[in-house]
Amino acid sequence: MNLNGKKIAILATHGFEQSELEVPRDRLTKAGATVEIVSIAAGEIKGWDKKNWGRAVKVDKTLDQAAAADYDAVVLPGGQINPDLLRVEPKALKFIKEIFEAKKIAAAVCHAPWLLIETGITKGRRMTSYKSIKTDVANAGAIWQDAEVVVDQGVVTSRNPGDLEAFSAKIIEEVREGRHTQRSAA
Amino acid sequence: MNLNGKKIAILATHGFEQSELEVPRDRLTKAGATVEIVSIAAGEIKGWDKKNWGRAVKVDKTLDQAAAADYDAVVLPGGQINPDLLRVEPKALKFIKEIFEAKKIAAAVCHAPWLLIETGITKGRRMTSYKSIKTDVANAGAIWQDAEVVVDQGVVTSRNPGDLEAFSAKIIEEVREGRHTQRSAA
Repeated sequence: MNLNGKKIAILATHGFEQSELEVPRDRLTKAGATVEIVSIAAGEIKGWDKKNWGRAVKVDKTLDQAAAADYDAVVLPGGQINPDLLRVEPKALKFIKEIFEAKKIAAAVCHAPWLLIETGITKGRRMTSYKSIKTDVANAGAIWQDAEVVVDQGVVTSRNPGDLEAFSAKIIEEVREGRHTQRSAA
Repeated sequence: MNLNGKKIAILATHGFEQSELEVPRDRLTKAGATVEIVSIAAGEIKGWDKKNWGRAVKVDKTLDQAAAADYDAVVLPGGQINPDLLRVEPKALKFIKEIFEAKKIAAAVCHAPWLLIETGITKGRRMTSYKSIKTDVANAGAIWQDAEVVVDQGVVTSRNPGDLEAFSAKIIEEVREGRHTQRSAA
């Protein structure tokens, strides 16, 4: 495992699918990484537990406080509400883009690939997503695949909460590998 | 007004933005139309009121009971949850497609244009939508416009709850005009 010294941002806001934040957070922390919850505003963000509001989590840093340069990876949980709110926030998109352009790891699960669409990271890239947004992902130029986890040069995607163990394990593997210097910008 | 003898389906499921179902329903009913709530399953569907669950409405017909041929128009309310659930339901997509292919009126507000993306109705069409899904709509081949209501040969779209009066008035106007026989399929 050994992600000692690695720092990972989980970028989310209200309506994140609870397990999609909690499982990667716990697995990455257990692997030795420092994990920080980054959001639009300070305070707490409310999770969504399948069919209703769920547990909240504390925000560690706002997007105004967090510098993309300080992180080795960004993890984007899904939910129907959270990524739909984030994709209209220029600071959220800028943060993701800066991580990506520094050839670090960008990981998105479920509905979070909408954020990769919005940043243009999808073009020509092998990806997966929740089934309902498959058309949006494909229309954004991605090569959509039905697999529990898809990696394309540091961009890690999964379909749904059932894939979270594979998703977390792949993020750990990719962060250990380090920067994807061969990667060309989209 | 006079929509006497006209029958309009509002197709929705749980998580529809409350005002986006209720306002068109009330305006169309007041104009003389028979309005039916069509959904996946019988019973009630739960509305969403801005930031939380809202009022429920009774389902008049399930998609198994409703025949597209019986309706002059289909109205699609938004919300983040409702159209995301409907777009993976083949019966919902078939219903919308049949209305569209019969050159009748298809109207979608807010996040409901996702359903027009999923049915392929967007290609080459002037449309609007909620701002967060503008990229998805444009990537699906539409010519996205920032206006309270956009009509392109019987396809009526609006951006958000603030546009509902213009949206409802345009649906009434279009249903009165009748079939769009000049319209070419997408």
